[in-house]
Amino acid sequence: MDYVNAPGRNHLFVPGPVNIPESVLRAMNRNNEDYRSPAIPAMTKALLEDVKKIFKTTSGTPFMIPTTGTGAWESALTNTLSPGDRIVSFLIGQFSLLWIDQQQRLKFNVDVVESDWGCGADLEVLESKLAADSSHTIKAICIVHNETATGVTNDLSKVRKLLDDYRHPALLLVDGVSSICALDFRMDEWGVDVALTGSQKALSLPTGMGIVCASPKALEATKTAKSVRVFFDWSDYLKFYKMGTYWPYTPSIQLLYGLRAALDLLFEEGLDNVIERHNRLGNATRLAVEAWGLKNCTQKEEWFSNTVTAVVVPPYIDGAEIVKRAWKRYNMSLGLGLNKVAGKVFRIGHLGNLNELQLLGCLAGVEMILKDVGYPVKLGSGVAAASAYLQNNIPLIPSRI
Amino acid sequence: MDYVNAPGRNHLFVPGPVNIPESVLRAMNRNNEDYRSPAIPAMTKALLEDVKKIFKTTSGTPFMIPTTGTGAWESALTNTLSPGDRIVSFLIGQFSLLWIDQQQRLKFNVDVVESDWGCGADLEVLESKLAADSSHTIKAICIVHNETATGVTNDLSKVRKLLDDYRHPALLLVDGVSSICALDFRMDEWGVDVALTGSQKALSLPTGMGIVCASPKALEATKTAKSVRVFFDWSDYLKFYKMGTYWPYTPSIQLLYGLRAALDLLFEEGLDNVIERHNRLGNATRLAVEAWGLKNCTQKEEWFSNTVTAVVVPPYIDGAEIVKRAWKRYNMSLGLGLNKVAGKVFRIGHLGNLNELQLLGCLAGVEMILKDVGYPVKLGSGVAAASAYLQNNIPLIPSRI
Amino acid sequence: MDYVNAPGRNHLFVPGPVNIPESVLRAMNRNNEDYRSPAIPAMTKALLEDVKKIFKTTSGTPFMIPTTGTGAWESALTNTLSPGDRIVSFLIGQFSLLWIDQQQRLKFNVDVVESDWGCGADLEVLESKLAADSSHTIKAICIVHNETATGVTNDLSKVRKLLDDYRHPALLLVDGVSSICALDFRMDEWGVDVALTGSQKALSLPTGMGIVCASPKALEATKTAKSVRVFFDWSDYLKFYKMGTYWPYTPSIQLLYGLRAALDLLFEEGLDNVIERHNRLGNATRLAVEAWGLKNCTQKEEWFSNTVTAVVVPPYIDGAEIVKRAWKRYNMSLGLGLNKVAGKVFRIGHLGNLNELQLLGCLAGVEMILKDVGYPVKLGSGVAAASAYLQNNIPLIPSRI
Amino acid sequence: MDYVNAPGRNHLFVPGPVNIPESVLRAMNRNNEDYRSPAIPAMTKALLEDVKKIFKTTSGTPFMIPTTGTGAWESALTNTLSPGDRIVSFLIGQFSLLWIDQQQRLKFNVDVVESDWGCGADLEVLESKLAADSSHTIKAICIVHNETATGVTNDLSKVRKLLDDYRHPALLLVDGVSSICALDFRMDEWGVDVALTGSQKALSLPTGMGIVCASPKALEATKTAKSVRVFFDWSDYLKFYKMGTYWPYTPSIQLLYGLRAALDLLFEEGLDNVIERHNRLGNATRLAVEAWGLKNCTQKEEWFSNTVTAVVVPPYIDGAEIVKRAWKRYNMSLGLGLNKVAGKVFRIGHLGNLNELQLLGCLAGVEMILKDVGYPVKLGSGVAAASAYLQNNIPLIPSRI
Repeated sequence: MDYVNAPGRNHLFVPGPVNIPESVLRAMNRNNEDYRSPAIPAMTKALLEDVKKIFKTTSGTPFMIPTTGTGAWESALTNTLSPGDRIVSFLIGQFSLLWIDQQQRLKFNVDVVESDWGCGADLEVLESKLAADSSHTIKAICIVHNETATGVTNDLSKVRKLLDDYRHPALLLVDGVSSICALDFRMDEWGVDVALTGSQKALSLPTGMGIVCASPKALEATKTAKSVRVFFDWSDYLKFYKMGTYWPYTPSIQLLYGLRAALDLLFEEGLDNVIERHNRLGNATRLAVEAWGLKNCTQKEEWFSNTVTAVVVPPYIDGAEIVKRAWKRYNMSLGLGLNKVAGKVFRIGHLGNLNELQLLGCLAGVEMILKDVGYPVKLGSGVAAASAYLQNNIPLIPSRI
Repeated sequence: MDYVNAPGRNHLFVPGPVNIPESVLRAMNRNNEDYRSPAIPAMTKALLEDVKKIFKTTSGTPFMIPTTGTGAWESALTNTLSPGDRIVSFLIGQFSLLWIDQQQRLKFNVDVVESDWGCGADLEVLESKLAADSSHTIKAICIVHNETATGVTNDLSKVRKLLDDYRHPALLLVDGVSSICALDFRMDEWGVDVALTGSQKALSLPTGMGIVCASPKALEATKTAKSVRVFFDWSDYLKFYKMGTYWPYTPSIQLLYGLRAALDLLFEEGLDNVIERHNRLGNATRLAVEAWGLKNCTQKEEWFSNTVTAVVVPPYIDGAEIVKRAWKRYNMSLGLGLNKVAGKVFRIGHLGNLNELQLLGCLAGVEMILKDVGYPVKLGSGVAAASAYLQNNIPLIPSRI
Repeated sequence: MDYVNAPGRNHLFVPGPVNIPESVLRAMNRNNEDYRSPAIPAMTKALLEDVKKIFKTTSGTPFMIPTTGTGAWESALTNTLSPGDRIVSFLIGQFSLLWIDQQQRLKFNVDVVESDWGCGADLEVLESKLAADSSHTIKAICIVHNETATGVTNDLSKVRKLLDDYRHPALLLVDGVSSICALDFRMDEWGVDVALTGSQKALSLPTGMGIVCASPKALEATKTAKSVRVFFDWSDYLKFYKMGTYWPYTPSIQLLYGLRAALDLLFEEGLDNVIERHNRLGNATRLAVEAWGLKNCTQKEEWFSNTVTAVVVPPYIDGAEIVKRAWKRYNMSLGLGLNKVAGKVFRIGHLGNLNELQLLGCLAGVEMILKDVGYPVKLGSGVAAASAYLQNNIPLIPSRI
Repeated sequence: MDYVNAPGRNHLFVPGPVNIPESVLRAMNRNNEDYRSPAIPAMTKALLEDVKKIFKTTSGTPFMIPTTGTGAWESALTNTLSPGDRIVSFLIGQFSLLWIDQQQRLKFNVDVVESDWGCGADLEVLESKLAADSSHTIKAICIVHNETATGVTNDLSKVRKLLDDYRHPALLLVDGVSSICALDFRMDEWGVDVALTGSQKALSLPTGMGIVCASPKALEATKTAKSVRVFFDWSDYLKFYKMGTYWPYTPSIQLLYGLRAALDLLFEEGLDNVIERHNRLGNATRLAVEAWGLKNCTQKEEWFSNTVTAVVVPPYIDGAEIVKRAWKRYNMSLGLGLNKVAGKVFRIGHLGNLNELQLLGCLAGVEMILKDVGYPVKLGSGVAAASAYLQNNIPLIPSRI
């Protein structure tokens, strides 16, 4: 079982699943419990209230579904739309591609807006489509907030502005899998109708809980949405919410306690401080990449992602070889380039419960690997660039002042 | 969070989620890992091979889906059937009712065969339907092996025999949620086409993994099954099985290691010994119920369940009050009566990683509760009856001889 | 490593080490920490304050030593006495015997007062010795509060009364290993000078922390005590207490967090309720023993122990065989008879974080074992007797009302 | 309890207690067990056999004592020596000083050989003492293999050679607390009579087990050693070894399972590879220190320690301030300078289950802290120097090739 042992900690820098804090591991280290005892509904009620905070919503209704991000996607689509509905969906990388694939297989009429991988959603095309859609045939806009494959963050406030400018009633469905709890996300302010994330991303939990949050407008849409759904049907949850027992089927007791501990950590640090920490980690990583003389897959600064950086390697190097060596020699897990950028990039995930010295260890490792594979990096250069920035920007730890 | 503390261990006797063995808790007490590292596919491959053993199949193809039993049901149905397909489904209690509800919402043409709650599936009705169906309009038979709400176990070999007798090609879909790993189950021998279970039942894991196993005939059926499916689509798994990376989306690393540990325990004990142990626990419970002068909700011996016993209370007692007192006074979790038998029964779950002295502690507790609520039980009577049987039947622990 | 696997929970009914509550296991499930960081002294300070409560002292000074009960004994003796000092020590069972052996090897002049095993300390002999000792040659009285080998609890208030009656200045050193946190213990009220316990007993922690509490008079005695001591020397602790760093050498971080969790549980339940719970468990056990027609090793009711019951077996039965069968057939751990009572008794430990249904499971198991080994027990009889008492006496769980 | 929370992992670089590997944490995450069941002696027997390997002895007898390093010291001394015995003891830093303090308080006649802090044991003085001691008044040589306070490793083979050259029968007692399992240590080859270590050092366990290993000559010496001892008396262990029950008093079940897991990890990596890994970590650290323009407290290369580096800070900087900032700003734990070198050095522990990228994260952190406190370090310089060396020297991970 543990046949891949290596000395010391694994350096986990894939953009999910991410490192689980010790206090969360502790909270989950427990026997099963009867989910019909009074303890679980009481805890669930508080969790549902608190989980809204990570979406920055007061009017939304959250669902904590025993599934992954893929299931959360399906839940968002099938509860609000009907087969044949026209939806505009942005293809900017592997995860938006997979969501589009799902949309098509769920029989929606998907209007794909493609960008080069490394670019953000093409909002000019969106604008032209909205302008041309006075009859409101577009039922939803589907957008990935942060494309994990390329490290591209879209500006959701601009999408909302376009919808508002054209007074377009389309639903705004957002994949926040690699953004929520790490990047600035404002469900109510940006008029997001369905937002979703997965437990194994910035929440720093194990995989297994897809958290979906629906606006009142999204809940209204469920009444006419004809997509077939049972496991992912919000109405079952709502029925049990009303009864006060909360769960239409068995939840993972361990993930509930884990979520409680994870939220406690996030709130203790302060959600804005968490976002600022991710900003620091993102900046530091990009400074290192620049110092190495390498390019960020992300084409423009406005799209830079603070949760994952896809680093473009020179043509004579295979990105997959970097990931392989990280694993085989340095006990480090980096992300592969996927699909169109396979081999062309490797990815550094910098999200979740992570601090600056952990990142600097990773960057030092990447430097050695680059040298291993024949790239003429100056060892220490990336760490130096990142450190120079971090040394000026890391705050004192509030609990230790 | 732990505001319901009570001294000592919680006595968990709901029919799921069940007690997790310490070695399984240990195996799951770990950080996340990159599921694309070589470690996870290697482990997954071995798990898929070993998981077949709990279904007693060599020809089946298993899928370990990040979902619950409800999701596993949906996976079984949508991968093999098309909307409008006629299916025969047995209604014998709350869980078969919920499955039928799902079948109807998934737009199948459900031919419901109802029995009194406490009785097994009405196979005479099935026979007449099969006899009448020379044109093979019935596409599938859906049956719950063990109805958790009433403690009724159906004889699947008889269902198979009827299908064979009438040379009927209908698929046989079986909910084995509260049976597999506890009751005798033989996928290949009984010609089961899809069998499924959930991790939190006899496997003694946390909730979060639905395990579905498909026969070659079921896999063949996927090619023509028109039900819309993405998250639950087996074809995505099969694609990744072929590639050797195994996971179309992120699995719970912790549940994989937990499953490894759970299977190791089951195989060490021996699956037949596990089944025999559940037989002992079931017999002992039934002897206690008899000694108390109470009735088993299960109407005939042939349907007695070895994983859960629903005990009928006298009309002047509310079954829910028994469950409430168990929790409030004895730190014990019993199962409520559901729907038609709400208040009329309480349930003792006796499945999973459980031994005889744990059960006797539970039975002693039930006796005190019965007295608490005004039933004239003779304290010690149930324990005495159960002990007399157990003392003759408990084997030595092989690892300690 | 786990080659003695058996299905279900081990039923741990030795009188220590005892069952660890899940919340304590969780608290200890953590990496090492720098014990010189500000976190550990802050926690230690609070622990030292709280630990006094389990001794019921406000004037005592506690020491949490990385050792076992045997080390705690040595610490109590060497810090307060000089070689050659006359001490009166009561021999009433194996653990008092071992302490006396230690006292002799530490070169004290031990005046042994022996009782039959099963009887308490002979206070009449003590009285005569005190009466005869007008010159105060007796420097200390050493007494085991609860003799774990025979299940005998001594009345410490009587010892104090005798010392007071004779205005005798001897120190009163008390082994509270199997009593503190389970039996009524009042350090200040009873004028105990040194009291001690071990973490693996009623505190329900792993082994590894010996907790010793010294009265002001005991601390004063250290100034003249000439016994050689370094590791066990309280003065090193006192020096670090004064500096505010608390630890002269490295403590177990895990045990500190575990102790915090254990104390939290005890205080939440209420120390008096904990003692009353042990009283219930003791009474229930004794009623079962009586119902079986067996004798308690403890000769008089005034000495009955609420933490352990030594059950006398008929001459034709070997007590060790009962313990062996418990382990080999029922996954239960009982205590052996030791030394003089080897083979003649087996012991049921009923201390620590334990509830009534756990005990009833144990008693049901003992009944089957008795039958296994040829004793004509009426199955269910002990459980019935215990249940009849418990059903009248178990309170509602406060957190669940 | 967790009031000092900070995002991400704590970077633990004190020279003990050190990071515990996850597999060891898992192994210890368990309930108590009856240490008199057949399981524990069987495990203990194997552990005693395996523990000899970390001392590189086949003739030694190990004792696993529930204590710390300080207790292990006391055990080594009191079992082999008598009060008044002349012993030669080297004072080279805070930990050798503390041992000498213990030796004096245990009433030995300690012949202290002092060196400047930062230097190794003065073997010339030893030679002159041996030369002058034809009557063999010296009963033992006490030496700390690796002085944790200054990062100085003594060459034990030279001590042995001197004893052999002078045919001197003095016992050789070695504190291997911060060396064994990390530095080359050869009990049999070097004729060490008592060697000892603590669980929380290179074994990477929690604190609580002092492991002492005695040569046949040391065991022989116990027969005449008159030092008073009970808790630390090896003869009690030997008595229980002979009986096959192994434990004179209750061991920590959790530490036994933890030790099993820790040894398994060490043996899987290979003890020589472990030592070589520490050599890499030591070299890398020293190269960084040099690149920063700072001095190693260790005066000569022959004494360089591969488990801890004490870094001398310029006079205008307080070493304690560096440690404080590491904790308050970077979630890193470094070691303080102690006693004579307080404020003058800070220490980087690099022992135990640790890998290169973890160390580089630490070094990057130290650079930022140095800048924080006003030292004109070139950020990245130390990491660059260390990386240049490591990139050439890190082997592939055998389990992943």
